Amino acid sequence: MWGIELQRQSEVSLKRQIYQALREQILHGRLKAGETLPSTRDLASELNVSRNTVNEAYDMLIVEGFVISRQGAPTRVAEGLRLPDDRPDGGAVKPELVTRSFAADFRTGQPDLRQFPRYLWQQIAGKTLQELPAKLFGYTGPDGLPALREEIAAWLLRSKGLAVAPGDLFITAGATHALHLVADLLYREGKEILVEDPCNHGMLQTLVNKGYPIAPIPVDAHGLQTDCLHGKHACAVYVTPSHQFPLGAILPAGRRAALIRFARETDSFIVEDDYDSEFRYYGDPVAPLYALDPQRVIYVGTFSKVLFPALRIGYVILPGRLHKRWRYLRTHTDVQNPPFEQAALAELLRTRKFDRHLGKMRKLYGERRQALLTALKACFGDTWRSWGDAAGLHLAVAFPGMSFDDAFAKKAMDSKIRITPVEYHTIRKGQHADKLLFGYGHLEPEEIARGVGLLHDFLQAEYGGFWSGRE
Amino acid sequence: MWGIELQRQSEVSLKRQIYQALREQILHGRLKAGETLPSTRDLASELNVSRNTVNEAYDMLIVEGFVISRQGAPTRVAEGLRLPDDRPDGGAVKPELVTRSFAADFRTGQPDLRQFPRYLWQQIAGKTLQELPAKLFGYTGPDGLPALREEIAAWLLRSKGLAVAPGDLFITAGATHALHLVADLLYREGKEILVEDPCNHGMLQTLVNKGYPIAPIPVDAHGLQTDCLHGKHACAVYVTPSHQFPLGAILPAGRRAALIRFARETDSFIVEDDYDSEFRYYGDPVAPLYALDPQRVIYVGTFSKVLFPALRIGYVILPGRLHKRWRYLRTHTDVQNPPFEQAALAELLRTRKFDRHLGKMRKLYGERRQALLTALKACFGDTWRSWGDAAGLHLAVAFPGMSFDDAFAKKAMDSKIRITPVEYHTIRKGQHADKLLFGYGHLEPEEIARGVGLLHDFLQAEYGGFWSGRE
Repeated sequence: MWGIELQRQSEVSLKRQIYQALREQILHGRLKAGETLPSTRDLASELNVSRNTVNEAYDMLIVEGFVISRQGAPTRVAEGLRLPDDRPDGGAVKPELVTRSFAADFRTGQPDLRQFPRYLWQQIAGKTLQELPAKLFGYTGPDGLPALREEIAAWLLRSKGLAVAPGDLFITAGATHALHLVADLLYREGKEILVEDPCNHGMLQTLVNKGYPIAPIPVDAHGLQTDCLHGKHACAVYVTPSHQFPLGAILPAGRRAALIRFARETDSFIVEDDYDSEFRYYGDPVAPLYALDPQRVIYVGTFSKVLFPALRIGYVILPGRLHKRWRYLRTHTDVQNPPFEQAALAELLRTRKFDRHLGKMRKLYGERRQALLTALKACFGDTWRSWGDAAGLHLAVAFPGMSFDDAFAKKAMDSKIRITPVEYHTIRKGQHADKLLFGYGHLEPEEIARGVGLLHDFLQAEYGGFWSGRE
Repeated sequence: MWGIELQRQSEVSLKRQIYQALREQILHGRLKAGETLPSTRDLASELNVSRNTVNEAYDMLIVEGFVISRQGAPTRVAEGLRLPDDRPDGGAVKPELVTRSFAADFRTGQPDLRQFPRYLWQQIAGKTLQELPAKLFGYTGPDGLPALREEIAAWLLRSKGLAVAPGDLFITAGATHALHLVADLLYREGKEILVEDPCNHGMLQTLVNKGYPIAPIPVDAHGLQTDCLHGKHACAVYVTPSHQFPLGAILPAGRRAALIRFARETDSFIVEDDYDSEFRYYGDPVAPLYALDPQRVIYVGTFSKVLFPALRIGYVILPGRLHKRWRYLRTHTDVQNPPFEQAALAELLRTRKFDRHLGKMRKLYGERRQALLTALKACFGDTWRSWGDAAGLHLAVAFPGMSFDDAFAKKAMDSKIRITPVEYHTIRKGQHADKLLFGYGHLEPEEIARGVGLLHDFLQAEYGGFWSGRE
């Protein structure tokens, strides 16, 4: 009776089960407007529960307006509650939860997490956890922890010679998050964002999602072709001058100056994404474009590659006239970063243990880059050419005469080889179809050699005539 | 000579100082295109540094294209590098870093951080830190930690009777972040977002920043006036049905049903922001609107109030047909949450220590609410009326005949009293001018009593005749 079946082992309390059962019946019209509920005494005895339990269930129905109770009158169902049956969802598709495993995995942008100094991090983070001041558990504002801003500024000075006031440096939840906010910050009706072509596909999506008109500017072996900027009406130019993604060029000084002149003449901003220049294997880190004009260049940095991606800490350096609006936008986007990771990273920087980790990883990644070049030479002879500066965690390689597209990548994946054609990152197709990207940072030298061998065999099997003729 | 002054105590290496000094001179035209740099031998002797140091500085200039070096020829300055002087920034305004202290601080939305079980959190977070699997340091996808999604779903069931599949629940960086993404998710050209009026000012800004047309729907003592929905072309309705912000109503069942019918008829969504209903002082938590139609209601929850704001963890429950686009948007907004806080919160929920903390805080906040009501009665007699359900961390109070606006709030602040008029949160002005918001969760009973006394004295001094006539 009353259609109530109680589950006595359930996590849900009995009163709530009664409330839910009656509510369902009201909503589906089985209990109609004006109808009387049973007395609490009757229902309690029926269900073999205490009268108090039924009373509490009725109270919930009363508070939420499903039933009306007046002094001395029986409890009745309220008006206008019935819901017609909705059409079913239909569109609910469960995501494929298949974790693929690859025999060769040259994906880009992956630091080697096996080398992360876990014990050191646990020590520092554990100490941070004990010492975190109570006030950091509340809202602390959109700028980021002062200690971290100071330590990052000090590190930028000692590692790249970049002089930045900590007050110009704002903590973000990584580089994507920084770009997402910068896009809002710089938006001007009818103005384009100019991007390098090719350009990181994910970052491009972030800009596209903002509703920006995007204008691609071609990239050659020296980075962005600044000649092509002429006549553009832009609010911003998004560039990777220290290590062009994905082709690897260092933007030369002449083009840097041209870019700054363009920004000044058109009253636009340059967004400099310095995603991995910490890893440069010969010579010193390239000086950021930012140093040339701190009023025109917005510098975006991240710790995802130099420490670990899940840390979710990056930063943006902004001219003073953008600070106020940045704070407003950050406050209404995601408020602030959590304090714990910020405080731990500040400590890692302060003790210079960060610098030592970076030095170690630079050496390791440099060796892996060399292992990749050696393996390419061994497997492919002289049929390829590497692009770009000796930096970062990936290498762009041209195989003249070849053409690599999405279908190629898919076919390779079916053979358990993950590798990205540069075409994946291009906007205008066909300019860089002969190039592949080899992410090597996360792979041991033996994994690299084996992977290049597997790729060679795959190419030979698929494009046999072409390859055999070249060796 | 050459205008280079080396700072030998600097953090910046000597080679970088030389590089920077020469770069500056090139950019400012003091070293002109085609001009020859001194030989490394001469400059080394001039500056009293090793020749190798100068060589390395020149290498940096060569790599970045500031100078050109050809076999056998002297090193010359490259063409086209001079930058004209830019106009100065001018707009750089340093933010006021004054921390105000208040004699009475009734700001809303503040949990009492003094009561946060720091030791317990340190224990659990410390254990989490030691045990965090290495794979969680890499990219783990936009959904959130599976363990946390399961524990939140289990807690929603045991605390609110809400049955949710963990796969429908996505972790966010708090409620603001959730709304920021939901706004992108639901955007449809030409359609409005309907919001309660009054509505949380910060959340409204988040929607406004998205470029949405906003249509206010008035709120009365029973929450959103669903009669006023008729004829609206909306993509979504943003509501706080469990505890209307700021007026405190529980949306009654009849209006809930009307709201669901509206969403079905107009093929729109309801965004349910359940920001603080965990704190309900009489009876059980109000059942979420979500339970009535999981295909039409998007439920937003947060741990900012029940644990601490800087945790930056919230969640959103989404119909299956929105999952794919949610993942896409999150990936290109800020990628994911960091894993550490998620794992620690999952453990707090799993061990039910969270439930105990919540029970303790509910009791404490309930006492503070009572202290506020007692103090209002003692100071203001019968000249006021409280609004809304006995829930949350703030109370809306009407003083009939009075009118509170921004100027009032500012004047109060000058007297060291922080209190927010409801008008601050209204869209159409003038409907709720007689109401003030008292945030009480973060205040001890004595602080509440003292604060109400100070407010009374301030009002008497400012609006003397009015008040003395009423007592």
